Amino acid sequence: MHDLRFYHRDKRVTVAELASLSGGIVQGDADVEIVTVGSFDGAEAGAVCFFEGKRPEQASQISPDASACFLRQDAAEHLPGSVTGIVVDWPRMAFSKAAIEFLKQRTLEAPGDDLGEPRIAATARIGSNAVIGQGVEIGERTIIGPNAVIGPGVRIGSDCQIAPGVVMECALIGNGVVIKANSVIGGTGFGVVATPDGIIHAPHFGRTIIQDHVSIGSCCCVDRGVFDDTVIGERTRLDNLVQVAHNVEIGRNCTVAAFGGISGSNKVGDGVQFGGRVGTADHISIGDGARLAAYSGLMRDVPAGETWGGSPAKPLRTMLREMTWLAKQTASRNKSSKD
Amino acid sequence: MHDLRFYHRDKRVTVAELASLSGGIVQGDADVEIVTVGSFDGAEAGAVCFFEGKRPEQASQISPDASACFLRQDAAEHLPGSVTGIVVDWPRMAFSKAAIEFLKQRTLEAPGDDLGEPRIAATARIGSNAVIGQGVEIGERTIIGPNAVIGPGVRIGSDCQIAPGVVMECALIGNGVVIKANSVIGGTGFGVVATPDGIIHAPHFGRTIIQDHVSIGSCCCVDRGVFDDTVIGERTRLDNLVQVAHNVEIGRNCTVAAFGGISGSNKVGDGVQFGGRVGTADHISIGDGARLAAYSGLMRDVPAGETWGGSPAKPLRTMLREMTWLAKQTASRNKSSKD
Amino acid sequence: MHDLRFYHRDKRVTVAELASLSGGIVQGDADVEIVTVGSFDGAEAGAVCFFEGKRPEQASQISPDASACFLRQDAAEHLPGSVTGIVVDWPRMAFSKAAIEFLKQRTLEAPGDDLGEPRIAATARIGSNAVIGQGVEIGERTIIGPNAVIGPGVRIGSDCQIAPGVVMECALIGNGVVIKANSVIGGTGFGVVATPDGIIHAPHFGRTIIQDHVSIGSCCCVDRGVFDDTVIGERTRLDNLVQVAHNVEIGRNCTVAAFGGISGSNKVGDGVQFGGRVGTADHISIGDGARLAAYSGLMRDVPAGETWGGSPAKPLRTMLREMTWLAKQTASRNKSSKD
Repeated sequence: MHDLRFYHRDKRVTVAELASLSGGIVQGDADVEIVTVGSFDGAEAGAVCFFEGKRPEQASQISPDASACFLRQDAAEHLPGSVTGIVVDWPRMAFSKAAIEFLKQRTLEAPGDDLGEPRIAATARIGSNAVIGQGVEIGERTIIGPNAVIGPGVRIGSDCQIAPGVVMECALIGNGVVIKANSVIGGTGFGVVATPDGIIHAPHFGRTIIQDHVSIGSCCCVDRGVFDDTVIGERTRLDNLVQVAHNVEIGRNCTVAAFGGISGSNKVGDGVQFGGRVGTADHISIGDGARLAAYSGLMRDVPAGETWGGSPAKPLRTMLREMTWLAKQTASRNKSSKD
Repeated sequence: MHDLRFYHRDKRVTVAELASLSGGIVQGDADVEIVTVGSFDGAEAGAVCFFEGKRPEQASQISPDASACFLRQDAAEHLPGSVTGIVVDWPRMAFSKAAIEFLKQRTLEAPGDDLGEPRIAATARIGSNAVIGQGVEIGERTIIGPNAVIGPGVRIGSDCQIAPGVVMECALIGNGVVIKANSVIGGTGFGVVATPDGIIHAPHFGRTIIQDHVSIGSCCCVDRGVFDDTVIGERTRLDNLVQVAHNVEIGRNCTVAAFGGISGSNKVGDGVQFGGRVGTADHISIGDGARLAAYSGLMRDVPAGETWGGSPAKPLRTMLREMTWLAKQTASRNKSSKD
Repeated sequence: MHDLRFYHRDKRVTVAELASLSGGIVQGDADVEIVTVGSFDGAEAGAVCFFEGKRPEQASQISPDASACFLRQDAAEHLPGSVTGIVVDWPRMAFSKAAIEFLKQRTLEAPGDDLGEPRIAATARIGSNAVIGQGVEIGERTIIGPNAVIGPGVRIGSDCQIAPGVVMECALIGNGVVIKANSVIGGTGFGVVATPDGIIHAPHFGRTIIQDHVSIGSCCCVDRGVFDDTVIGERTRLDNLVQVAHNVEIGRNCTVAAFGGISGSNKVGDGVQFGGRVGTADHISIGDGARLAAYSGLMRDVPAGETWGGSPAKPLRTMLREMTWLAKQTASRNKSSKD
């Protein structure tokens, strides 16, 4: 279910209506009302989802609670019987069109049905020209800097410092959180939808969740999830100019040095240390307590407790052995060529 | 010719007057009026330009339409006869001094002659505390976020989303463009002018042009051109924290992942895919459909359709072969040392 | 001594009171009044500092002018006799707790005792919605862009251009300085304090000093010092998206291309050229006139005048020899495997 603080349904729609937007063929009950969206393996009752897996038989893993699912013809036969199928050639594109037909992000310009006045604690302080959306909650002693922009429905706990120029939407912020100047929290990610007409924006229906005592540097970007949430765990600290992509989950007590980039759907354990300028590929996991040397480019999972380096990254000891060997080869060649 | 929306002439000047600012010696008609600036190979009638090429005989390629050109003594004899020469020791420095003498950027603080009230479509929405300069045009259904700053003369098409905190100057924005929070569009580039007294800022007289349906992430920087334009082609998408330098031309349907950096005067074809953290040297070309692996550092041109990686980048297959061979050498050494 | 423009003492405290916050044992005069903070080797009279060096005997290098010093039991015997010791298990943590007890940063929300109205030169221009703190000084002809935020006590010289969205605190800015849009100057650095209860923020009591004619790009971050100052020397130029960490000292006439990252406590000489995306480890020195190739990752000191590249960086010639040799090995292997 979408978070009602950040998204609102502005139209009643049925499976038949959503199918017609893309010329899809309904397989099952076309009159079911759709009230939300979900991922194919997590969709709840009332939700429409999509399936675009490479192997059609994986469609059997579609959540049986989902009310409807966009998918291709070859996958339709594997769909759980409880789910209405909508057969199309481009499931993700058709889903995207359907989703934005009835489900809208609440924005400062178009907040949807009234969320009410912001609820700002008596001891909180709001800087000059800060813009606070409908339904925002701000806790005791929290400071919102000048020119910060807090979108509708955002919840910020107590004792937080939100610096000037921070822009935030679709976000839940714990207690004691520090977000430094000009960072952007909860924006849409770089997810793209390939269509026969080119690339379109992937609609986002998730959130960004920043847990207690997290610290985020200046000019950082923490995107929100597509369906689920981007999460940064307690006491994790990001330096300046760090990027956290959509659907990332970072554990507790991690440190990410400047220019760190954690890519889409990464799972990062507790106590992981990212040196400066470490980047990662999408969909990888990094185990608890791993240490990643500055400049590492991670292309695959890193086991807990290991120290990796290089690009593509490998165990640091292996990388250093290779570099040392290479240096020795050419040093001796150089020497012998002088002899 | 400079774009009158972004630059204005605030003084009538002749070649003689401009020459005198740097003690230059006029070769030709000193009374010609100068009304604009240009690059040495593109300058139009009424323009002053400069030539600082390493080989003096290349001065023959100076645009014959130019009204005047700063250049060194040894290049002067190769100047087309239709162009008045201004002989100096430091052409670029002398040009810079001359250009800022009569041609000024319109800024919010000093917009020059009146460009008139902004023309904002009835269905456009302007956020709180957004600052909109003189002569700005904003199309139907476009949303300008709170605290955005739009400089004089900027044109933004219809159905655009300009997020909070975006700063924009000297820019033409098409339809359906998305620019996410706190990005900076149309600033001056990093071009420097070496002078006998140290480094000075290179004055910029170009624009940034963002074509239809481009998407630009948060905290991105897209600098404007020095004389010509920085251009991002239709449907190209930039992730967060991407840098596009002055005079870059990017084609259509490209994707640039986070921390991508496209350096000055690069030409990028259509459908090029930049992995995360790809950087480039100045003045290189990347052909249509090229794919650049994450962490690539491009030091020279990449042919169309090729996949490159590494730093300095080379064809990905070559790079991987080298890395695999190196790993094998040291793995076997390691093994044999245990034997 | 802390700069009274940026920090203020809001309470009278003695060594005994500060010691009690962490259960420390006072060795010496417990009634001394503490009025400021300092580093262990630079603390002045009235200052409290801390010592956490690995070798206890290095405590003999603690400034004899300091009034008090948090340190471990094993270091206490080496403390100069003029300094009162406060013996604790976690000196830095105890110091941090003590420092924030009596010494506060002046912020827009809590400027402390009255610094008076900003002193803005008659010819300076302040953009719409810019926020200017108490006691700020702004020189002749300086332009502050819309939505910029200038914290209490900041001093900006004449002929500066501070672009829209810039956020600045605890900073002294010279004459003719350019700071482009959405950059953040004088924020706290990434310094962390390890405690038995996890990581806490290191309080900062230093400044950022930007000397005359420096140019800083868009979306840059220049952190302030912890005790001392972060300094950028005359005419040095930073491109966009550059990070300068706490306590860095950069000389004159340096250039730092996009995505450069200069880490904590680096000392950079004059005329150093950083190519794009160069990063450095903490606490290294780079000599005058050094040139660092794009993508270098510096892990140790670079001598004056040398050109380095690669990651970990080494002299560029060595790095290129290794790369060339490797390419040759695998090219010939490839050829012979086809034979």
